[in-house]
This record gives sequence, C-alpha cells and structure tokens, in this order.
Amino acid sequence: MQGAPKTADNNDSAQDIVRSIGLCAKSAAADLSQKTDEETNKALNQLADIILEQSDAILAANKIDVAAAEEKQITAAMIDRLTLNDERIQAIAQSVRDIAALDNPVGLVLETTERPNGLVIEKISVPIGVLGMIYESRPNVTIDAAALCLKSRNAVLLRGGSESFHSSQALFDCVQKALKANNFPIDAVTMMPSTDRALVGEMLKAHDYIDVIIPRGGKGLTGRVMSEATMPVFAHLDGNCHIYIHASADKDMALDIIKNAKLRRTGICGSAESLLFDQALPKEFIHDVLDMLCNENCEIVGDETIQSIHDKVQTATEEDWRTEYLDKKISAKMVATIDEAITHINTYGSHHTDAIISNDDTATQEFIKRVDSAIVMHNTSTQFADGGEFGMGAEIGIGTGKLHARGPVGIRQLTTFKYIVKGNGHTRP
Amino acid sequence: MQGAPKTADNNDSAQDIVRSIGLCAKSAAADLSQKTDEETNKALNQLADIILEQSDAILAANKIDVAAAEEKQITAAMIDRLTLNDERIQAIAQSVRDIAALDNPVGLVLETTERPNGLVIEKISVPIGVLGMIYESRPNVTIDAAALCLKSRNAVLLRGGSESFHSSQALFDCVQKALKANNFPIDAVTMMPSTDRALVGEMLKAHDYIDVIIPRGGKGLTGRVMSEATMPVFAHLDGNCHIYIHASADKDMALDIIKNAKLRRTGICGSAESLLFDQALPKEFIHDVLDMLCNENCEIVGDETIQSIHDKVQTATEEDWRTEYLDKKISAKMVATIDEAITHINTYGSHHTDAIISNDDTATQEFIKRVDSAIVMHNTSTQFADGGEFGMGAEIGIGTGKLHARGPVGIRQLTTFKYIVKGNGHTRP
Repeated sequence: MQGAPKTADNNDSAQDIVRSIGLCAKSAAADLSQKTDEETNKALNQLADIILEQSDAILAANKIDVAAAEEKQITAAMIDRLTLNDERIQAIAQSVRDIAALDNPVGLVLETTERPNGLVIEKISVPIGVLGMIYESRPNVTIDAAALCLKSRNAVLLRGGSESFHSSQALFDCVQKALKANNFPIDAVTMMPSTDRALVGEMLKAHDYIDVIIPRGGKGLTGRVMSEATMPVFAHLDGNCHIYIHASADKDMALDIIKNAKLRRTGICGSAESLLFDQALPKEFIHDVLDMLCNENCEIVGDETIQSIHDKVQTATEEDWRTEYLDKKISAKMVATIDEAITHINTYGSHHTDAIISNDDTATQEFIKRVDSAIVMHNTSTQFADGGEFGMGAEIGIGTGKLHARGPVGIRQLTTFKYIVKGNGHTRP
Repeated sequence: MQGAPKTADNNDSAQDIVRSIGLCAKSAAADLSQKTDEETNKALNQLADIILEQSDAILAANKIDVAAAEEKQITAAMIDRLTLNDERIQAIAQSVRDIAALDNPVGLVLETTERPNGLVIEKISVPIGVLGMIYESRPNVTIDAAALCLKSRNAVLLRGGSESFHSSQALFDCVQKALKANNFPIDAVTMMPSTDRALVGEMLKAHDYIDVIIPRGGKGLTGRVMSEATMPVFAHLDGNCHIYIHASADKDMALDIIKNAKLRRTGICGSAESLLFDQALPKEFIHDVLDMLCNENCEIVGDETIQSIHDKVQTATEEDWRTEYLDKKISAKMVATIDEAITHINTYGSHHTDAIISNDDTATQEFIKRVDSAIVMHNTSTQFADGGEFGMGAEIGIGTGKLHARGPVGIRQLTTFKYIVKGNGHTRP
C-alpha cells in the first residue's frame, strides 16, 4: 500500500491515480476504525488549533484564489462564498470543535436480541469505510468534511473545486499536520492531486474503493454525481417543497408559516416553492396569503383560478410546478381534493420536504401517510428541514434517496452497522 | 397509467415494456402503501387457499417445464429445484401463511424526538416502493417474493428464469386472483411478459421506476446484477466464510463448531470455507481438526505448514483463499498473529460471515472490532448466518452491501423510513 503515487504525472491515468489513492484510503480506514473517540477528539481539537495558528498562510492562499476568481469575472455571490477572513477562519476552527463535541457515533449497540437457544445477537454501529466528497467553491467544506469523517472514523477522498484550490490545499495541510501529530494514518484524509474533471469520473466508477459519494454544490454537480455514481450517493437534487393549505387551516397560522417557509431564507433547500390551496378555502383567505407575499415582493405564478383571486399573479407553466426557485418567487395552484394535492406533490415534488397546514385530523393523517417525501410536516415551516433543527448536530445535507440517509444526513448517517453473534460453542441443529 | 402495454410485440422495445410496467407498478405501490395489515393478511391467506385450490393447474404447468428441462439434459439438481409436487405446493401455501403471520413492518415509530421548541419529530417505517426480483429456476420464489413484498406493502416486478416459466406463470395467476378478490391493485405484482434477457438489462437501468433490485440465483446472475444495476441491490455475491481458531480455543468446541460450520449443509452461503489456525496452537490440536474433516470425507487444501501437520492436505493455490466451495472442501492456513488472520479475512473474504473460536477476551474483542463483515461470530457455527436464526422470520437472503440490508434481509429490511414533523404553527427564527 505504501509508496503509491499521489501526484499526477504524464504516465498516470486518472484511473490509476484514483485506484492508488483508493487503496491507501481503504487501508487507512481500517486503522481509523480502531481509534477511540478520545483519540479522535484530541486530533480534532488540535486541528482547530492548527487552523488558527496557520491563519496567515490560509489567508495568503485564499488571496490567490480570490484574485484569480476576480480576473475570471465570477459573480459576486461566488466570490463571497470563496472568500475567507479572520472571522470565517475562526468559525471553521469552531465547527471542528463542535464536531469533536458530538456524541461518539461508533460502537453503539443499536439492538440486542437473545435467541431461545442462548445466542446473543448485537447490532452495533461501525464506520462506513471510505467516503468520497466532491464539492465546489466553499473552501470550508474541506475542513467540515475532514472533521465529520474523522469523527465517524471514515477515511475520505476530497475533490474540491478549481476556484478554491489554493485555499483548500492550505486547509488540507492543516489536516495533514493534525493527523501526523496524533499518529493517525495520513491517508485518512486525501485530497485529489488536481482538479482535472477526469478524476471526478473515475471517483464515480471506483465502487471498489469508495463506499459512498457525497456531492456538495449546485444542481449541475449533484445531478452528474447522482446519474454517474456506481455507489450510493447521499444527496438531494433539489428541494421543490410544497405547502398544502387545507380548508380547516387557521388563517393566521397559514400566513405566518407561509411567510417563514418562503421568505426566511430563499436560498436553502427547505424553503417552500409551491402552494396548493384547498378550493374549499374562503377566497379572502387565499387572497390574503397572496397579498402578504406580494407585499413582501415575492413573485407569484399560478393557475387561472389563483390568478382570478389576485391580479398580481402571473401565469404558471407546466415547468413551474417542477421548479425550485431558490428566490423570492413561488407557484400557487388550486386543488379540488386532498387526493389531488398529494398526487401533485408526489408527481412534481422532489421527495424532500412537504407540509400540510390543517386543523382536521383525518386530512392531516392522510397527507402524512401518502406523501412520499423524506420529511412530511404538519403546521410547521418547511425551513425546519435541517439536521441542526432535528437535533443531529452538524449535518452534511439532506438526502432524498430511499435508503439509509433519507432526510438530514448527520454524523450518525455516516455510520452503518454490523451484527455480532456471541455463542458458547453453539452448533446449528 | 391504465392501458399500458403489458405484452411484448414487435413494436415494443424492451425499454418501453419496462417503463410502462414500471409506471403501473409505481402507481400500484402508492395504493398498496395505504392497505392495512389486516387487509394484507386477508389477501395473503386467500392467496394460500387459491394456491391449494389451483394445485392441479400448477402441477400441469410444472410438468411442461420439467419435460422441457429433461430434454435439454439439465443437471439432476436443477431439475429437482424446478420440480413441484403436492407436498411442495403445500409448503408454498404454508410459507404465505407464515409471512402473513409476521408482525406488521409498516408504520412503526422507530424514533421520537421532542425538540426544545416543542416540535415533535417521528421516524416511521414505510414501504420502499417498487422492488425488482430477478430469479432463476425455483418457481416458489414467485410466491415468496410476492408474499414478502405484499406484506411489506411494496409493489414488485418479477422476472423468473426461462426453465420455470410455465410454473411461475401458474403461480402468478394465483397471485392475480388473490389481488383481484381483495380489491388490491393488480399491478402490485407484475411478471415480465417474457424471459428475454434484454428485459433484465432494462430492469437494471430503470432506477426511475425500481427502487431496489434483489437477485436470487447463482453467482453469474448475482454478479451481473451487482455490476450493472443503477439502483441499490440486496444481495451477496458469495459467502467465503472463515473460522479463526485462536490459541486459547477449546479443542472440543472447535471440533464441534468446525464440523457443523463446514458439513451441516455445504451448499448454503453461511457454510465455512476457510480455516485460519493460530500458530501457537498445539500441533496435535490442528491435526485432530484436520483428521476429523478427513474422516468426514472433506477435502482439505492448505499451506506448507498445514500440509506438514497432516499428510492428506493438498496444496492450496492463491485462488483457493478466495474460493467459496459450497462443497465438502475447505482451505486451511497457519497465521502467526491475530492481525494476520484479520487482514487475511478482510482481504480474501466476502464480508459475509466470519467467526473466531477463542477463550481470550482481548483477542475476541479485537477480532469483532476489526473484521469488516456483515456478521462476526464468536464461538458459534457460521451456519447460524440466517434470517430465521436471527429471529427475523422469512428472509430473502443475506446482503453484503454496506448500507441498509447488511446481513440477513428480512421483512423489516424491505421497509425504509420517513420523518414526520409535527408543529403548532412553528416558524424558524
């Protein structure tokens, strides 16, 4: 395993690079799985110290990235995501300490069964193995990913975006220092040697070395990873979240929830993107909701009935029902029955987070049972779709896959399990 | 969704067939998820009745398959797997009743969290959606799969082997009768219209319609499914199970466990295929184990040291360490340390089931912690690697994937979960 090439040269194909890094990561994962929580926390807290000590070097590297980005005339929002300063470096170091302070996710006894023959079967939590993290411009993901993976005793292969290459490298150097200082395998956290796109393709094929891939970035990246990956992916493509307002809804509650769900932060995946109004609601109720949104400068597109209720509503196209705006814009539709609402959500939604506002128990139960989403909410803002709000501590994101990491992906979702069977010379009859 | 073509004609590509069946199955899965356990059990028990009523028709269809198989000069073992008789039909009907009698796996509250802000978050078990089952010659899999999927409220697409086509079709007709009689969606259980191999390829690509694929058959089938499937697969490729005999092992216990683990049934995935002897064991101990196996007509291949201890041991090749014999044959190797044993298992094993025989707590704990297999056993025959023995009731098989269905795949593993968040007008600050 030692001496495997880590840097690209002309003789190494992308496949060879990923394979050799993958082999080293697998070996490191085996060592890492034996580290105690105390040893891990010590390494993480030292990583936080090193980040603060190295902040001048990190800021200098970040300046190179920012200058290159400015030359490329990248959007202000992207430059903001890329830029580090003292305050942000302190926040990065603090997030590492917060991750160290989480409960140990490894070695938990999840279930115990004693069989009639006396065999004792335990299901215990264990690290998954090797994770692949593919991300874009935010350099802090380098540290977030490294810290979450170390805490859960998983090795990780990092592939950051080209815009943040120097910043990520400077942060990665801090990780290497912390690993060495604590006698952790240095291959526990590996950075791809270049931002060559071919390396991403090879990572997605490398199911012999990488157990799970986690993309963090825009829809383009996530979509590519979801369609090409040959291993499980923890991600959501989008969050086209709905709110269904049942005839029994309380108007004040509906106004509060809808305002919060759409407008608290428009750019997060749990923000509401579509309203479904029960046609049994009073027109005035619907008008007041639409009016509140207009007064908040939120653009509304709707079907003809909705348009007839408020004159500022523009025409919604078929595409609108599928769209996650991530902006001050929302679609609105009238539905004749709860069945129509549920069918619309299951057809056009993204199986992420959908909510009902209702004071009718039967309707609420039907909605909860039939909406096929990772998170189904009742009388609650969809903006609570977040690992922190679920009490999971740091989260990596929200998963819309059906298995394992459905909903918020926290530290516990970075572990799997194995069965331990304890006998006393048992043979099977 | 209605009226989708179900039978192949020259104008339908395999892709169109799978897509239209998949759409119908998705729609049926939504209906099925709303059926109660009582409704489901009634349908299942009626299915058992119908199978018994239709036994003449089933046996007649089976005769056609068996006659065709005999003409093709298929092995006696395969013809045995294919052949039905009154007793086997009664066993099939009984297995349906046994599945109906299992605890309801759907709608269980798996976790409840109350957040400081009063939000209540429940994690509840729900059906996965649409399962694809690809199997070979055993016609009873048609009923097993249908019953397990109905019990867990999943729709299923069945693709049986060509050898058992008529038998499977007759059994499938019973399922259709039971579905209709109980007002269940008939697309809840669908049989592929032909045994065209192109349909398997299209099933493996159809992740928009099929949530999980379960292959049941030989290594050729399973290997193809694992490498081509674009959705999660519940399966194991092989069960190259090891027993490590530590220096502290009790000899009588070792003899009993090894005899049972290798020879109770040699053809099951939990049978032992490789012995790793601690070199600190007395030579006489090792000799007696080898001698016991020889006396049971079990062929042994081993390394030079093992060969020097017993003259009936043949030379093991590198390939032997990777081989699942499923026969009266076993490999044997001397290891210098527990580290060598664990590394050997993690390198050559199939991450299925591996056991240590030991009376030393430190060694046992190290083995349990470091062996990266779905099931790790202590002082127990590996033949206990079985859903029934784990108390899961009927099982579909053993999974060696890292996530969700690791180890025995029972009815609970045919469900996933969603989060329900209950508020009272909560908005996020």
